Amino acid sequence: MRKVAIIGVGTTKFGELWWSSFRELVMEAGIRALEDAGIGGDDIDAIYVGNMSGGQFIRQEHLACLIADHAGLNPLPCTRVEAACASGGLALRQAMIAVASGMHDIVVAAGVEKMSDVIGEGAVGALASASDQEWEAFVGATFPSLYALMARRHMYEFGTTEEQMALVAVKNHAFAARNPCAQYHTKISVEDVLRSPPVCTPLKLLDCSPISDGAACVVLAPAEEAKRYTDTPILIAGSGHATDTLALHSRRSLVQLDATVEAAREAYRMAGLTPSEVQVAEVHDCFTIAEIMAIEDLGFCKKGEGGKMTEEGQTNLGGKVVVNPSGGLKGKGHPVGATGIAQAVEIVLQLRGEAGKRQVEGAQVGLTHNVGGTGGTAVVHIFRRMG
Amino acid sequence: MRKVAIIGVGTTKFGELWWSSFRELVMEAGIRALEDAGIGGDDIDAIYVGNMSGGQFIRQEHLACLIADHAGLNPLPCTRVEAACASGGLALRQAMIAVASGMHDIVVAAGVEKMSDVIGEGAVGALASASDQEWEAFVGATFPSLYALMARRHMYEFGTTEEQMALVAVKNHAFAARNPCAQYHTKISVEDVLRSPPVCTPLKLLDCSPISDGAACVVLAPAEEAKRYTDTPILIAGSGHATDTLALHSRRSLVQLDATVEAAREAYRMAGLTPSEVQVAEVHDCFTIAEIMAIEDLGFCKKGEGGKMTEEGQTNLGGKVVVNPSGGLKGKGHPVGATGIAQAVEIVLQLRGEAGKRQVEGAQVGLTHNVGGTGGTAVVHIFRRMG
Repeated sequence: MRKVAIIGVGTTKFGELWWSSFRELVMEAGIRALEDAGIGGDDIDAIYVGNMSGGQFIRQEHLACLIADHAGLNPLPCTRVEAACASGGLALRQAMIAVASGMHDIVVAAGVEKMSDVIGEGAVGALASASDQEWEAFVGATFPSLYALMARRHMYEFGTTEEQMALVAVKNHAFAARNPCAQYHTKISVEDVLRSPPVCTPLKLLDCSPISDGAACVVLAPAEEAKRYTDTPILIAGSGHATDTLALHSRRSLVQLDATVEAAREAYRMAGLTPSEVQVAEVHDCFTIAEIMAIEDLGFCKKGEGGKMTEEGQTNLGGKVVVNPSGGLKGKGHPVGATGIAQAVEIVLQLRGEAGKRQVEGAQVGLTHNVGGTGGTAVVHIFRRMG
Repeated sequence: MRKVAIIGVGTTKFGELWWSSFRELVMEAGIRALEDAGIGGDDIDAIYVGNMSGGQFIRQEHLACLIADHAGLNPLPCTRVEAACASGGLALRQAMIAVASGMHDIVVAAGVEKMSDVIGEGAVGALASASDQEWEAFVGATFPSLYALMARRHMYEFGTTEEQMALVAVKNHAFAARNPCAQYHTKISVEDVLRSPPVCTPLKLLDCSPISDGAACVVLAPAEEAKRYTDTPILIAGSGHATDTLALHSRRSLVQLDATVEAAREAYRMAGLTPSEVQVAEVHDCFTIAEIMAIEDLGFCKKGEGGKMTEEGQTNLGGKVVVNPSGGLKGKGHPVGATGIAQAVEIVLQLRGEAGKRQVEGAQVGLTHNVGGTGGTAVVHIFRRMG
């Protein structure tokens, strides 16, 4: 397999973008990524796009074709990949495989979701289709309720506190305030989180990521040719993808995402790196408890110590590993199909040293962690600066 | 890139399968394919699954994870690919790329759709989301109406007749009667087609493929290792994928699918073959006019001569190229995400000489042609027996 590098990135602002349609969002992110890479549409050999549910959100399937069409790039091959909220990360992986195979050279990996226009049973109903329809959604389980089960069990087993979970939201909002593309620029306090309305106890409103619109793109090239396009190509050093049971109740454990552990193992092995070598990570904090479990499952601390690690500031600037400097899903926003690509955009900016006020100084190795559903899918990528 | 071969195939019966759920269908096809390849679930390295709209049909996204789960194969990486009715063909292509890259060795490419349980606005409404929602579906265009525009124009430009279109349905029903897995085993006459109720003039009920449930799977392996598994591996000699405008009205022509022409060109080039060397083809006859345009666009006859070629029996047994011996979408059924994989299953059976009463004698080279929407996506694969 050829090694693959990222030579350009672009993202829209995330938020409730009432004035932007699905097709406009993906164009905006794409144009920025191409400009960043210094290439034109004619240079692209293929597009992979992550999108969770255009069918339910905007009643549009066949999205990949629409994107090639709206970009004026027909007959360019364009492929949609779906894995719920991990759709973006999985699109990146498929794009990487396509370049690695030699089938294509320059490939755009895109992620996009337009959630605020949703009709029918609403965004929460559409999102519930990422859980097991027959055993979870059908009986009324929503994602906050499923993650609340995990949170409650984590509190029971390890003494994790609501304050520790709140600190995840506080940190990520503080980072988001420094990210021009983030949905929220409001700093919040632990008190704000604890006093926010309950969604599903112990999770409160400010423990939950929002409904968002947005798109993000990265441009991939064979690593050996990447220097022709940019002085700072970022190598995709490792990639891992794993599944677990779709329904939460079938799992071995409620406090660990086995899919994350397995995907991370694969990515670390491929990269030849260990968790302690990662300086910056974008992890899937769809709920605050998810970030605490993620930093454990990715090996940044022992199982059960995620709350403590957060409390000690080890996931903040100056800590052991800076987690979600973009603001994460909580602060930057969570247009579900776009999230996995937006995570890669942030890590590329960090490794290039272009992350502005949220820069992790001297970052050489970064990681992204994208989860579908309650952990039925996990995709992990590891990135490093090229020599 | 490594060459890739198919070492096993399996399919369910297609039809209105009220007694089978989505997850049961894909298991049934998968088990048959693994048995055919003589391998077990533990031998698989990854699954790719084509599905158009689990979200709208059964309110289930995150399908790939569900499949790995229900098969007891977690943490196996499993990826869903969507391109409307070309989802299956595109899943096959991504599976091929994954094996070609060296990322995986044994990969299952699956296709599945459960359409008869549809809730909400019904199957036709869900299918319409494969057209341009903002410019076609929103104003009431359905697929029969869009293909009727193409049929009318083809009749105007080339003198194609309703009888010639009817002959496509007659041929494909006759083939379906010989296929145990087909939805219909009813032979029909030209008179039956012409007298069937109009759906959108000039297309009548028997010009249209049905709403179906079904699943199909193929097992891929590196060609160099394929003989370890089977005496009759079938090489995927060529693969092409192209897009066109999503909306029909934006096209250069109403009587040619440029995406088919482009995808076929790429597949023929990769295979080093010409259209005249293809002895058997499964083409995307979602409507009878679609088969007539397909045999032109794939190069089996000149543009405008598809009706005549059909009338002369050149697409039937003993003809120049046997088209849709499985019964095609019209006779075998069209569970949209499964169709592209089911086409590959049929071609593999034909090239192995295992197609029973519908066998094309001595077939060495076969082709599949899978279309999304009105031609916004086309995927073409060329297969040949390995020496």
